[in-house]
Amino acid sequence: LERVTALAGGVGAARLLRGVARLLPPRALTVVVNTGDDEEFYGLRVCPDLDTATYNLAGAAPPERGWGLAGDSHRVLSALGRFYREAWFQLGDLDLATHLFRTQALRAGRPLHRVTAQIARSFGVVATILPMSDQRVRTFVETRRGERLPFQEYFVHRRSRDPVRRLHYRGARAARPAPGVLTAIRRAELLLLPPSNPFTSIRPILAVPGIRGELRRRRAPLVAVSPVAGGRAVRGPLGGMLRAVGAPVSPIGIARLYRGLLDGMVIDSRDARLRPQLERRGIAVTLIDVEMDTMEKSMRVARAALALARELRGAGT
Amino acid sequence: LERVTALAGGVGAARLLRGVARLLPPRALTVVVNTGDDEEFYGLRVCPDLDTATYNLAGAAPPERGWGLAGDSHRVLSALGRFYREAWFQLGDLDLATHLFRTQALRAGRPLHRVTAQIARSFGVVATILPMSDQRVRTFVETRRGERLPFQEYFVHRRSRDPVRRLHYRGARAARPAPGVLTAIRRAELLLLPPSNPFTSIRPILAVPGIRGELRRRRAPLVAVSPVAGGRAVRGPLGGMLRAVGAPVSPIGIARLYRGLLDGMVIDSRDARLRPQLERRGIAVTLIDVEMDTMEKSMRVARAALALARELRGAGT
Repeated sequence: LERVTALAGGVGAARLLRGVARLLPPRALTVVVNTGDDEEFYGLRVCPDLDTATYNLAGAAPPERGWGLAGDSHRVLSALGRFYREAWFQLGDLDLATHLFRTQALRAGRPLHRVTAQIARSFGVVATILPMSDQRVRTFVETRRGERLPFQEYFVHRRSRDPVRRLHYRGARAARPAPGVLTAIRRAELLLLPPSNPFTSIRPILAVPGIRGELRRRRAPLVAVSPVAGGRAVRGPLGGMLRAVGAPVSPIGIARLYRGLLDGMVIDSRDARLRPQLERRGIAVTLIDVEMDTMEKSMRVARAALALARELRGAGT
Repeated sequence: LERVTALAGGVGAARLLRGVARLLPPRALTVVVNTGDDEEFYGLRVCPDLDTATYNLAGAAPPERGWGLAGDSHRVLSALGRFYREAWFQLGDLDLATHLFRTQALRAGRPLHRVTAQIARSFGVVATILPMSDQRVRTFVETRRGERLPFQEYFVHRRSRDPVRRLHYRGARAARPAPGVLTAIRRAELLLLPPSNPFTSIRPILAVPGIRGELRRRRAPLVAVSPVAGGRAVRGPLGGMLRAVGAPVSPIGIARLYRGLLDGMVIDSRDARLRPQLERRGIAVTLIDVEMDTMEKSMRVARAALALARELRGAGT
């Protein structure tokens, strides 16, 4: 496989992709990253999912935690406490340098995709990392009480505690795919949906006009790795969001959300009984332990996803 | 003395003022600070003289060095090296928090004098610290080779090595004194010129329309502490600048630069022989060791300056 394109959110995606990157030729991987979670903190533009992708593909993230930079400290953050009452968003000192660089470059008028490429290069990443769009799209979480919270406020500050009614991707309709995104989807030999939260990580990408259509027109197989295993989300608040839309907390629920897009799915061995249901929907299934908290496990799951894709290509999907 | 107003540059001024602040009632001191040295680094607005005043009056600066924050580190700066070829301006991690706060507040539209007051309050400073102006004034150093260097480029990057022809205070004519500056000069019972470099620290302040006139109309005595002692500048590139304009590297040279402004001058004991010349110009003189590298010495010099002022007030200057 010479051209693999993944849509990606944060840690779940990065865990799969660090494995995928090791199994492919150096420049084979392109990652289209969610920017709906981006936020301004202390005047700095923070792009959590872009940085998580970059840091993990660079091998610079702490392998177990999967986000931020290994060996980082919080000296600046502690000093910011003097000026700001709340400092609920953790910004590491080393991480902060990335945000400073990005903020300055964006203010100078450079588009996000160029700035992202330069950051990736500076970290020695050879894969292509693309933001879904150069325009701002902001994910808002509407709670059952009717509040609309910016994603980081909901996710980090309130720790995903509020019951969710639905999500809004503000600005999506006016956004355009970043240069390179549609081509990367069109030219891919394999399209990957890593185990990201479909609501908060993948749907914001699909909400950018043009991207979903390009995926529907694909000739390459599209393989997802399930972010749900044994009746629970592998990480994060996905379970409650699935229940909120009346979908089962299982690969079936995920397949429903991605309706019409999936050719194959890597699911957890504990969900083996769901295989027939998925196959009835035309989705080829591979069973494996989908946990990826070590690099070894990441490579095992990545291998399974690539093997499934090769099978599907061989079968002429 | 209930109302003392000082014009101030960086470390030289801060060394005197930390002593002065200890000898006066809590809110008696107002410092009007040079902002001609301000610069943007990594997209952050850095105001070296304002911060030097704040940090020293807060007791947060390392007492010997006199600038920056005690116990600071350079984690962010080291990480910025990944993105920027040159990182010649030292930004400490704790210091960076101040710049982040200021930059965000300025971008939000708050004027510099308000942001400065909030930073001072956050550091527990009770003295009033005022920028000379809310508008940008930028000091440029014209070298003998004809280059015009922004002050920090000349001072920090090139280490004041270039022979200086003259200085330019760009933007000064269009600037207005920050709110509070003229009142602080008008209402002062004593006006102080600490041992700052007249060219790079005090003249940018005097170049803001209205300030020099207000000083000329003063009824309170104006006392300077000499930044030159024993034929040399106490610190920094002042010696070469005096020579460049044909002035002697002595309190006489300083008095010439401040022509018409000085009522009294605290000079170094080594310059005792110059006393008659100064007195002939109508300047009352106190002799003392003007070095202030410890708090004790700062207080000794401060005491001498305040005593001279009281004498001059008693004499009805």
